[in-house]
Amino acid sequence: MRISELSERSGVPVATVKYYLREELLPKGEAVSATQARYTEEHLKRLRLVRALAEVAEIPLGRIRAVLQAVDDPELDLHTLLGVAQYAFTRPAAEPAADDPAWQRAERRTAELLAELGWQAGDASPARGRLVRAVAALERLDAPPSPETLHGYAAAAHRTAELDLDRVDPVMPRDETVQRVVTTSALMEQTLSALRLLAQEDESARRFGGTPGRGSRPQGRGAPDDGGADGD
Amino acid sequence: MRISELSERSGVPVATVKYYLREELLPKGEAVSATQARYTEEHLKRLRLVRALAEVAEIPLGRIRAVLQAVDDPELDLHTLLGVAQYAFTRPAAEPAADDPAWQRAERRTAELLAELGWQAGDASPARGRLVRAVAALERLDAPPSPETLHGYAAAAHRTAELDLDRVDPVMPRDETVQRVVTTSALMEQTLSALRLLAQEDESARRFGGTPGRGSRPQGRGAPDDGGADGD
Repeated sequence: MRISELSERSGVPVATVKYYLREELLPKGEAVSATQARYTEEHLKRLRLVRALAEVAEIPLGRIRAVLQAVDDPELDLHTLLGVAQYAFTRPAAEPAADDPAWQRAERRTAELLAELGWQAGDASPARGRLVRAVAALERLDAPPSPETLHGYAAAAHRTAELDLDRVDPVMPRDETVQRVVTTSALMEQTLSALRLLAQEDESARRFGGTPGRGSRPQGRGAPDDGGADGD
Repeated sequence: MRISELSERSGVPVATVKYYLREELLPKGEAVSATQARYTEEHLKRLRLVRALAEVAEIPLGRIRAVLQAVDDPELDLHTLLGVAQYAFTRPAAEPAADDPAWQRAERRTAELLAELGWQAGDASPARGRLVRAVAALERLDAPPSPETLHGYAAAAHRTAELDLDRVDPVMPRDETVQRVVTTSALMEQTLSALRLLAQEDESARRFGGTPGRGSRPQGRGAPDDGGADGD
């Protein structure tokens, strides 16, 4: 297909497609003349993946490129591929002040938690640093999470991780696998984050007697409590 | 206390404290001379809260101010207070293209999911829009989450919301409540996000046979699998 069809079918403007080509986020098409190239279904798939990562997951293009290069390497096993994607997409926490007692307490509690959980994870993970950072901030506020809270969170987190990996089939074509793995790291995270906020609102309403249906109904959308049919 | 002590005890530089005062994120101290003011433990608490929100949760100052003003209103009940904080801290999703079939499918699936869950939430919540957006992106990638995945995620999300609200005691002093509610919305989110990444690594190692202890041990930190004692 031509670049115009690629743009139309992906919903990505032609100028943006050209930008992605220049930035090597999308492989070049097959040249059919000095000014024209032809693109395949593979280009379309890759373009949709880049779009989702850039626009929805808000991952910087430089990191997307690094991951795409890694996933195009057929030597990489699935576990390593997931690790490359996850580590690239996770911003490391800033270095702590060495003499910050809150950080030191958080560091110790994180090490204890991971030891109790027995997870095969975390030594070099940027996620570990981010966990320490969040716990340290709660320590500084004199509101550290209890061991029960941390273990409850860990159990919920592990359950979602199992669901994520249920979606990955090791015998799938590699481009499918890539998509699943990468979307797992980014889009399901956003799904969970949104569900958590909605769950907080629900639980708060149940406990503290909020008014059900607080706020106006959104324009032109089916309300979630009217039986599930979309009103549009 | 003087501004210098306020700075020292909070770890926030004097220049930043002055900036927060000008920006009304921190109430003015009691003037004791033309050039000096005195600050209380309340100022210190508020300063620590602002710091955690700005530096750790990365919430823009304008939104922090809006929430602090709301939480200083003693008329607000706890459920509304939580809602104000959550809605202010949640960036709304961009408006969809009206004719985007992936968005329409995601909108329908979200409405169905929330109806099945029976949650008292979501009509006006920016989180609902963010959920639709994430599901629509997965739809566009031909990788929509299954109903089982969405329900599993929802159950995990609800469990964490219950844990969050266990930390809120309605008879706590209002400033404590504020802190718990606001940190719930921001810092526990980061805690969960980090735990989820670590859980994915663990589950991936179990399923796809990664090398346990992949990656180098972090410098100067106790490894999580050596019994939990911090090596520092």
